[in-house]
Amino acid sequence: MVQELIDKAAVLVEALPYIRRFYEKTIVIKYGGHAMTDDGLRASFAVDVVFLKYVGLRPVIVHGGGPQIGAIQEKLGLESTFVDGLRVTNDATMEVVEMVLGGRVNGEIVELVNRGGGRAVGLTGNDGGMLTVRRKLKEGQDIGRVGEIVQVDPAAITAVANAGFVPVIAPIGVDTEGLRYNVNADEAAGAIARALQAEKLILLTDVEGVKGGTGELIHRLSVEAARKLLAEGSIREGMIPKVECCIDALSDGVSRTHIIDGRIVHAILLEVFTDGGVGTLLTH
Amino acid sequence: MVQELIDKAAVLVEALPYIRRFYEKTIVIKYGGHAMTDDGLRASFAVDVVFLKYVGLRPVIVHGGGPQIGAIQEKLGLESTFVDGLRVTNDATMEVVEMVLGGRVNGEIVELVNRGGGRAVGLTGNDGGMLTVRRKLKEGQDIGRVGEIVQVDPAAITAVANAGFVPVIAPIGVDTEGLRYNVNADEAAGAIARALQAEKLILLTDVEGVKGGTGELIHRLSVEAARKLLAEGSIREGMIPKVECCIDALSDGVSRTHIIDGRIVHAILLEVFTDGGVGTLLTH
Amino acid sequence: MVQELIDKAAVLVEALPYIRRFYEKTIVIKYGGHAMTDDGLRASFAVDVVFLKYVGLRPVIVHGGGPQIGAIQEKLGLESTFVDGLRVTNDATMEVVEMVLGGRVNGEIVELVNRGGGRAVGLTGNDGGMLTVRRKLKEGQDIGRVGEIVQVDPAAITAVANAGFVPVIAPIGVDTEGLRYNVNADEAAGAIARALQAEKLILLTDVEGVKGGTGELIHRLSVEAARKLLAEGSIREGMIPKVECCIDALSDGVSRTHIIDGRIVHAILLEVFTDGGVGTLLTH
Amino acid sequence: MVQELIDKAAVLVEALPYIRRFYEKTIVIKYGGHAMTDDGLRASFAVDVVFLKYVGLRPVIVHGGGPQIGAIQEKLGLESTFVDGLRVTNDATMEVVEMVLGGRVNGEIVELVNRGGGRAVGLTGNDGGMLTVRRKLKEGQDIGRVGEIVQVDPAAITAVANAGFVPVIAPIGVDTEGLRYNVNADEAAGAIARALQAEKLILLTDVEGVKGGTGELIHRLSVEAARKLLAEGSIREGMIPKVECCIDALSDGVSRTHIIDGRIVHAILLEVFTDGGVGTLLTH
Amino acid sequence: MVQELIDKAAVLVEALPYIRRFYEKTIVIKYGGHAMTDDGLRASFAVDVVFLKYVGLRPVIVHGGGPQIGAIQEKLGLESTFVDGLRVTNDATMEVVEMVLGGRVNGEIVELVNRGGGRAVGLTGNDGGMLTVRRKLKEGQDIGRVGEIVQVDPAAITAVANAGFVPVIAPIGVDTEGLRYNVNADEAAGAIARALQAEKLILLTDVEGVKGGTGELIHRLSVEAARKLLAEGSIREGMIPKVECCIDALSDGVSRTHIIDGRIVHAILLEVFTDGGVGTLLTH
Amino acid sequence: MVQELIDKAAVLVEALPYIRRFYEKTIVIKYGGHAMTDDGLRASFAVDVVFLKYVGLRPVIVHGGGPQIGAIQEKLGLESTFVDGLRVTNDATMEVVEMVLGGRVNGEIVELVNRGGGRAVGLTGNDGGMLTVRRKLKEGQDIGRVGEIVQVDPAAITAVANAGFVPVIAPIGVDTEGLRYNVNADEAAGAIARALQAEKLILLTDVEGVKGGTGELIHRLSVEAARKLLAEGSIREGMIPKVECCIDALSDGVSRTHIIDGRIVHAILLEVFTDGGVGTLLTH
Repeated sequence: MVQELIDKAAVLVEALPYIRRFYEKTIVIKYGGHAMTDDGLRASFAVDVVFLKYVGLRPVIVHGGGPQIGAIQEKLGLESTFVDGLRVTNDATMEVVEMVLGGRVNGEIVELVNRGGGRAVGLTGNDGGMLTVRRKLKEGQDIGRVGEIVQVDPAAITAVANAGFVPVIAPIGVDTEGLRYNVNADEAAGAIARALQAEKLILLTDVEGVKGGTGELIHRLSVEAARKLLAEGSIREGMIPKVECCIDALSDGVSRTHIIDGRIVHAILLEVFTDGGVGTLLTH
Repeated sequence: MVQELIDKAAVLVEALPYIRRFYEKTIVIKYGGHAMTDDGLRASFAVDVVFLKYVGLRPVIVHGGGPQIGAIQEKLGLESTFVDGLRVTNDATMEVVEMVLGGRVNGEIVELVNRGGGRAVGLTGNDGGMLTVRRKLKEGQDIGRVGEIVQVDPAAITAVANAGFVPVIAPIGVDTEGLRYNVNADEAAGAIARALQAEKLILLTDVEGVKGGTGELIHRLSVEAARKLLAEGSIREGMIPKVECCIDALSDGVSRTHIIDGRIVHAILLEVFTDGGVGTLLTH
Repeated sequence: MVQELIDKAAVLVEALPYIRRFYEKTIVIKYGGHAMTDDGLRASFAVDVVFLKYVGLRPVIVHGGGPQIGAIQEKLGLESTFVDGLRVTNDATMEVVEMVLGGRVNGEIVELVNRGGGRAVGLTGNDGGMLTVRRKLKEGQDIGRVGEIVQVDPAAITAVANAGFVPVIAPIGVDTEGLRYNVNADEAAGAIARALQAEKLILLTDVEGVKGGTGELIHRLSVEAARKLLAEGSIREGMIPKVECCIDALSDGVSRTHIIDGRIVHAILLEVFTDGGVGTLLTH
Repeated sequence: MVQELIDKAAVLVEALPYIRRFYEKTIVIKYGGHAMTDDGLRASFAVDVVFLKYVGLRPVIVHGGGPQIGAIQEKLGLESTFVDGLRVTNDATMEVVEMVLGGRVNGEIVELVNRGGGRAVGLTGNDGGMLTVRRKLKEGQDIGRVGEIVQVDPAAITAVANAGFVPVIAPIGVDTEGLRYNVNADEAAGAIARALQAEKLILLTDVEGVKGGTGELIHRLSVEAARKLLAEGSIREGMIPKVECCIDALSDGVSRTHIIDGRIVHAILLEVFTDGGVGTLLTH
Repeated sequence: MVQELIDKAAVLVEALPYIRRFYEKTIVIKYGGHAMTDDGLRASFAVDVVFLKYVGLRPVIVHGGGPQIGAIQEKLGLESTFVDGLRVTNDATMEVVEMVLGGRVNGEIVELVNRGGGRAVGLTGNDGGMLTVRRKLKEGQDIGRVGEIVQVDPAAITAVANAGFVPVIAPIGVDTEGLRYNVNADEAAGAIARALQAEKLILLTDVEGVKGGTGELIHRLSVEAARKLLAEGSIREGMIPKVECCIDALSDGVSRTHIIDGRIVHAILLEVFTDGGVGTLLTH
Repeated sequence: MVQELIDKAAVLVEALPYIRRFYEKTIVIKYGGHAMTDDGLRASFAVDVVFLKYVGLRPVIVHGGGPQIGAIQEKLGLESTFVDGLRVTNDATMEVVEMVLGGRVNGEIVELVNRGGGRAVGLTGNDGGMLTVRRKLKEGQDIGRVGEIVQVDPAAITAVANAGFVPVIAPIGVDTEGLRYNVNADEAAGAIARALQAEKLILLTDVEGVKGGTGELIHRLSVEAARKLLAEGSIREGMIPKVECCIDALSDGVSRTHIIDGRIVHAILLEVFTDGGVGTLLTH
């Protein structure tokens, strides 16, 4: 039993340098995938966020909600169409997006964190004019109310975080006419991390991490190497925008970015506070 | 033309004592009804809120959304049932309530105020554990996920207001198990006004105000007189809970409460800043 | 009656963009002429100042007092002499100036604002070494204790304004030997506006505003156009130093300057808060 | 020479406990008499005030100006009348009082302190509504615009002192109608000392201090003993109101009061910072 | 390997509620015994203290140094005498105590924490007049310069802790004459914990904890039970003052006290952050 | 007796410009020699320090302790060896240095200032990692644990001073391995004065000051002149490092440095607050 105690102590001691390094630093987490739908993973996510908060970090959560949107779409008899992985969003769909992301999914995450012992406040990119967007064209094709971020005003996030709350953000943007748009959650997380000059950007995914041409997991990837892999076409399609999002963040003041496996319990805790991580670290 | 100028000056001068009296005071406004659906009234509401903010008051908005909920209900093929004016809220309905109130309606009001020149942030009673509720029984009858407020933690509202934003609140509560509930917007506004020790509570309605037994509008009503009218049964049914809500607020630190006609443009502005009001003032 | 309410609301709404634009901005007002001697205008001036204060602006008043000085001069059997509109100020006269401006006139304005519902504090340019001057020569001619401002230390003004008071300043300066001097009130207002980097400088006069060569009132005048009019000799003599004072202020950080008709009730209120002004706006 | 140094050090060392005891304490000084008219004493007074300020005390000066008022009265051909040492103040006289006290004398003291190395700001009891008075009756006899203090609002004094300035106050009060009144400077100093809960009240006079029945100077006098002397009629007439003023101050929170000989150079410095004082200490 | 990660996460997650509970709370640790002499334990102690600091607690260390004092005593040819476990401290011995505790031992602990990644500042009870003592009599017998604490002024500790340093305190007291005294380190830790209203007092010892009459380790002991054991004489002699010290602390505002086994690596970390502790918890 | 008062006032008045000039400025004092061993001088030193503190300066004391170290060395049968005035410090000696300087001497000075009415806190260069040193070589010769300062982190000094305490610092440094070293007190005082950008550095010595080639005391010495005297070899050996220390301080932001005669009572007071000083002023 003494050995067990010693082992416990070793884990805490291993975490200490990370706790010191990230003290009062902002960590933006893109939350989505299985981690958002599996009950066990949901609970472990809540614990991780509260842990970050209590050891002095400033977590900021940006969430997606694709499957939930699809489910409601279906109930309403609306059809989901995608162009290159981006949902084609007509006005009826956007209404659903806003309700599902900003109303239901956001509320559930807030409640999840609150019940885990934290104090969360839900926001959307509409609050305080946080995310200004313009209509995105996909290879010249209009895909409807899908927004491309042109400016981030982080004042609402900061107000909420400074008062001790964990901001939970739904990726909805507004154009200069006041029209609201669906925004890709990875993009929103990246843009917010840059606006906050976050220490870390963590993208939770449903895969192990970035894989090289031969399918092996890459633990650490420099910007240069990532660009080379992209140019070579060695990165699988779904991962391409995530890698690009990390590169953009790194070139704009974010120190470290992670693409990690959200299917592992406490993936965030392990990534932030232990020597071994659970995915791919992209950094300079 | 000089006369016109003098008349303008007179209006401004008339507003001065009210601006002074309410300086840095909190005003909670229940927003709903026609004022929320008519485009002209929506615009005038936004201007009023921004005006309050700029002359140094602290407006807090609590909104309802009954008709919008009903509309989505219908699209989803769900039936709306009411008991004593309270929506019977089964789990499917509550999902709709959360999406419509917390997602769509809240977002629209935030955007409305933002475009009117203010800076709003949307919240629900779930944020920061603001509204703790328990299941409400209506004459012993279970009406589903309808919550009765048992505690208000205004920290999230204060955080947002202190940072210069106008809080816009959807009346959703959470019970101690983390289950979310529909809350009557008038009740929520009253409870929030009490928790913030607001100077004023204003309920926007679709009628002229409180009417006496003979149908005449009552401009000013003491708590005592209101209790007497309630006891006599002289107050029409829909107005009863509103009057009770005002009496509760007055007995718990709120200085003045108003039930006003939201169908008049700039009703709030006129109520707060001119000698004649546009509805019924309930006070001690 | 509803129309009347709507009209009232329209005036308030018209004022809103101005209230927003000038929020927490400093407005320096040169107070003098009829507005200082006519009882009705005095009362309307007090209301205007208190209004500015309560909607969040920071008014600073600089006053003259020529007629009052002359009246006391006469009682004391002292003769008033002028060179180019500047009072020749021997030591006996300066004693009177200090008593009348710093004692009587200043006290009356302070009391006027206090009774109007504001809280004013009287200062002179001697307080906290606010206005450092040197002896002014007028075309080589010594005109006695008339000072030309060489430096402004606004610390006393700021102390008083930060504590929520309206500073009311008598234009008395001090040279480096400690000798006190009479200073032209327009000049003092201009110099103080520059030192405070005021948003606006307003000169209250007894005429309609700046007039062009054909005697018509000019509503808006650019610095360039004003310089041209001065060069052409189209501006009448008494107005020349006022126009020059505005040009100096504009070239040193003040955003807008106004020469307005102090004989209109609530002239300041109308100038600051309505679309139509009551005089001439000089700006870049 | 070493002995001389040792003697110097002894004086500084003697001052230390007083500097410590009065650190950040408020000291109200009634300034008047020879100390205000003799050039050498004026200079020594300025040095004393600046010294207090620099070793961390908060001096507040309240001044009179009887002789200066009389001189101007005479020039204006107005007659001075007194009832029991109180100037009968008709409206014409009050105009002179305001000009002389608030304009000239106040300005001279401000300038005196400024030139001595301090930073003074002049105030009157009118500023910020500091001294509210009512008409004083002297044994039923109306003596005109002579005010009896009914309330002190020290906000203007505090604003100025907190910003590092020495407040210099002319004893002019205002009644609830806005009418300004002459106030006895000793009374004003006493009332201000009480409102500020000053540590010390020092009245500068033109005599050695309080004398007993046999004409000997009394160095220390308890409230009780002072009351006995007053009852016995042993205190000479001019001194009676000063002693009463000290008793009032002591019974309302002021710790120590001094009636000292303003004809001695650096009388204040010696009183505050050395073991032997230069007049009479009245204390509990 | 994934299992290993999950185990690590489990330890961190187990620590979370403790991190939350003790956030910004003060923890006073009496440091002594083997934990202070064994190199491995010293290093683990430093890590524990730095860990506490970084997860947001406020550790305060009070140390002893008996063995070190004895060693120097010996080198100086001075004899150590004890009465009831208290060192008889003549003036020569006190000189040694001050040098060893305040100079050498304190410096070593400061350096230990600094090198462990913290920032420590050494203090003694003499600094800022922290520990006022009087001469202790042991059953009427004078045991020399051994002090009993009569007052604690924690200002120096607070100054250092507020600036982000870990205070390391040598238990030296001063009497009202300025004479310095040796103070028992457990007593000093207890008194300081009470003065700081600490959340926890932890006494590091060289035994497993408090043992009952039959020699078994007691994991949790109420004040009442402890008093009973003391009355029965079931607690072994060396432990008696430690138990009494805990009881005193508990009755004066400290929430929890621990007597733990300092021979276990990371004993503090385990005690504070895991479900199982490593000694005896004394609490209400 | 009046003359005596006037003389007293003159001394205070003479001090005023110095009190003003040094208000809130930091003064670093190297304390040592007779001033530290003679009871009368010790008491006068304490008074001087408390005086500085109370008139608004920020004194920081750095002390030596050579003779006290020697005395304990002797008791322990250790031999003192010197190379060029620097104590050869083997590990045993360093242990003594740490005990004597950091424990005993520091504690005595803290207690001295406390009893004099101040509030002192003792520190060593080890606290908060204040003095980082490397091993000093003296003409290539290893003289043991004697440190040369390479970096100063004044955070611990500032924390203590900001909380109103007088920092009393023992000149012990730490190298990057955590090994502690003896540091020359003059050097430490100079380095600390530079790190704090002190207004003044005062070195208390046992001689009158710097003397020229013919043995006469030099009252004021420019950096240039001092360098010339050093080059000429006109400065006696013991004084050379002190003069060099002053030159270094002056070239790194310290305004004035003084080498004064610590054998004169109140030497510091006289140096700081009177027109004549008691030693040599080195300045630009």
